[in-house]
Amino acid sequence: MKILVLNCGSSSIKYKLFNMESNEVVAQGGVEKIGMKGSFLKLTLPNGQKVQLEGEILEHRAGIEYIFGVLLSEKYGCIKSLDEIDAVGHRVVHGGERFNKSVLITDEVIEMLEECIELAPLHNPPNLKGIFAIKELLPDTPQVSVFDTAFHQTMPDYAYVYGLPYSLYEKYGIRRYGFHGTSHRYVSKRACEFLNVPYESQRIITAHIGNGVSITAIKNGKSIDTSMGMTPVEGLMMGTRSGDLDPGVISYIMEKERMSALGVSTLLNKFSGVLGISGISSDMREIEAGIKENNPRAILAMNTYNYRIKKYVGAYSAVLGGVDILVFTGGVGENQWVTRSTVCENMEYMGIELDEELNRSVRAKEVVISKPTSKVKVLIIPTDEELTIAKDTMEILGR
Amino acid sequence: MKILVLNCGSSSIKYKLFNMESNEVVAQGGVEKIGMKGSFLKLTLPNGQKVQLEGEILEHRAGIEYIFGVLLSEKYGCIKSLDEIDAVGHRVVHGGERFNKSVLITDEVIEMLEECIELAPLHNPPNLKGIFAIKELLPDTPQVSVFDTAFHQTMPDYAYVYGLPYSLYEKYGIRRYGFHGTSHRYVSKRACEFLNVPYESQRIITAHIGNGVSITAIKNGKSIDTSMGMTPVEGLMMGTRSGDLDPGVISYIMEKERMSALGVSTLLNKFSGVLGISGISSDMREIEAGIKENNPRAILAMNTYNYRIKKYVGAYSAVLGGVDILVFTGGVGENQWVTRSTVCENMEYMGIELDEELNRSVRAKEVVISKPTSKVKVLIIPTDEELTIAKDTMEILGR
Repeated sequence: MKILVLNCGSSSIKYKLFNMESNEVVAQGGVEKIGMKGSFLKLTLPNGQKVQLEGEILEHRAGIEYIFGVLLSEKYGCIKSLDEIDAVGHRVVHGGERFNKSVLITDEVIEMLEECIELAPLHNPPNLKGIFAIKELLPDTPQVSVFDTAFHQTMPDYAYVYGLPYSLYEKYGIRRYGFHGTSHRYVSKRACEFLNVPYESQRIITAHIGNGVSITAIKNGKSIDTSMGMTPVEGLMMGTRSGDLDPGVISYIMEKERMSALGVSTLLNKFSGVLGISGISSDMREIEAGIKENNPRAILAMNTYNYRIKKYVGAYSAVLGGVDILVFTGGVGENQWVTRSTVCENMEYMGIELDEELNRSVRAKEVVISKPTSKVKVLIIPTDEELTIAKDTMEILGR
Repeated sequence: MKILVLNCGSSSIKYKLFNMESNEVVAQGGVEKIGMKGSFLKLTLPNGQKVQLEGEILEHRAGIEYIFGVLLSEKYGCIKSLDEIDAVGHRVVHGGERFNKSVLITDEVIEMLEECIELAPLHNPPNLKGIFAIKELLPDTPQVSVFDTAFHQTMPDYAYVYGLPYSLYEKYGIRRYGFHGTSHRYVSKRACEFLNVPYESQRIITAHIGNGVSITAIKNGKSIDTSMGMTPVEGLMMGTRSGDLDPGVISYIMEKERMSALGVSTLLNKFSGVLGISGISSDMREIEAGIKENNPRAILAMNTYNYRIKKYVGAYSAVLGGVDILVFTGGVGENQWVTRSTVCENMEYMGIELDEELNRSVRAKEVVISKPTSKVKVLIIPTDEELTIAKDTMEILGR
């Protein structure tokens, strides 16, 4: 059985084709710069070789057709016919309160997805474009929608409500939804499998630290709180996103800089966070290089970034009444030992004892990095959102 | 030695006259509705009796003159001449980065205070009005300024910087300052005196839960983090203030409701928080009444309010690397056992064991409410900002 997983962004489409018998990726790559000059398709061959193919890709349907062409091609392909694709799983960013799990896409579901556009005007429309394109190109192939928000729908009301007039929740659905749900769900489950403990009775904190950063508190297999909010700008500081910020500062900036609501939203999403503080880059690897050169603002950006992760780990420990498992994942979480080390420093009071030497020596693999005596098991679990989407898709098709 | 403490708000002046030999309050009261119809002076006599005196009080200087008249009056007075007032201590809300402790007010200090108006346009101007009035009415009496922000000036940069372009900090001083510093300083010190432990080597969390709510992490006698930010709207949920909020929600509301920056600022400061969620009241006593009637939104408001306090206690435990002392103060912190109980529930992992029975039975007095076995000592310490201002004033005058 082969499942194609699609992640459609505003100007890009990432794809992975899975052979579900072996859980193997048989093809992967992405289309970039859709609708822009210089659009191209990039793929990684099974031997690891990367290939880039130019092409004028004006919209998402053309991008998917291009992907199909490559999948079928003699030189780079891996299938003989599109019929070999048994189903398509889509990453969909925002499912609002309508979706608390992955669903088979029907006309009714599409209508509900359209209603969720309001909540994620930048993310949901390209997700839908991908769904429509597949509907046209492969009308008989079942499609499944896997939501970033669904896993967090178990949060209690006091965790998701904002301190705002309640009418704003009723009128516009303004509340915490949370994102990265597929990742938090995958790594928390995987950690329990790895440790051979029952998922349904653990208190887990998952720290997804990548381009976006979010932390989730999971109790007995359910998300009970998460750091991202109605939008992905809340919570931890990120590459270019501010994370938590005094709400009073926003109107202050708008007045001082004569900025519109849209302007300040762009500022907080695109020019803030690590990039804003450091003035160097949004990429933690470049921040690390800056620190080696004693750049004070690179140091400040790194310290602030790590400090805020530590605060959330502390906050969610309180929410969980103590922690059994702490999982690091995402590009930074899997690869940067400094962040893991700083977050876990002086946390013996809550039962964290990191094996510092081991922590420094490992990256991007499943491994326990706490000492055997540590009450809290600290792990690295590389995330795999695409595999989770493929598995959800297979499950929903009942195979 | 007699010290007059003044707290000048936009339409009110609170006063207390202290006899510093005995630490006694010899007179107290306040002027309200300055510049409005129906302005009056309210005072509490030494026997506890409350007296209200009508009067047309058009501005702050007139209000202070009215207070002087009462202090000197035969019926309600306690001094024969204004010369008996040895000094005046003022509560000043925002000292920016210029003031890290209380100071004697000189012309230079007044200039610096005027520079801080930008940061607290609603609070600092009435504080200055009080200072100017005393300068005119009692030109030879020394005045001292005690800042809400000063105690928090010891925060490290990674705790006070926001995830914003650094230029906004350089240009406008946009950073975390924190408030309630006089209260956090007083109750943390007092808790150590009460427990007979050295202030300079404790890890303390102080929870000031009143009309405004803020929590501070104090390490070795210094504030290292606090929940309020550049403005007092950040952090915990309050009576009418939102507290922490997804920054992305603000531009969303502005667009949906066609609101200006000023409009949204008013919304977040005056119509949000407990009032916003409950739709009933900003007063926790009325919320408690609503809960008794099973009002679901009163229940939600209370749960959210308490939950967020718990999260901050957890976050600051991580920041401190464990806690020695947790102090509750402020109107709610001193009086509402439910909030203390909920915050301390299931916190054994960090060493909190509340004596539930004791907690329910006490209010508004200095008392340890944790069990003898509790690693973290949990206390109620009624705050006394005015006495702290009076003591600071005396200290600065070198007496």
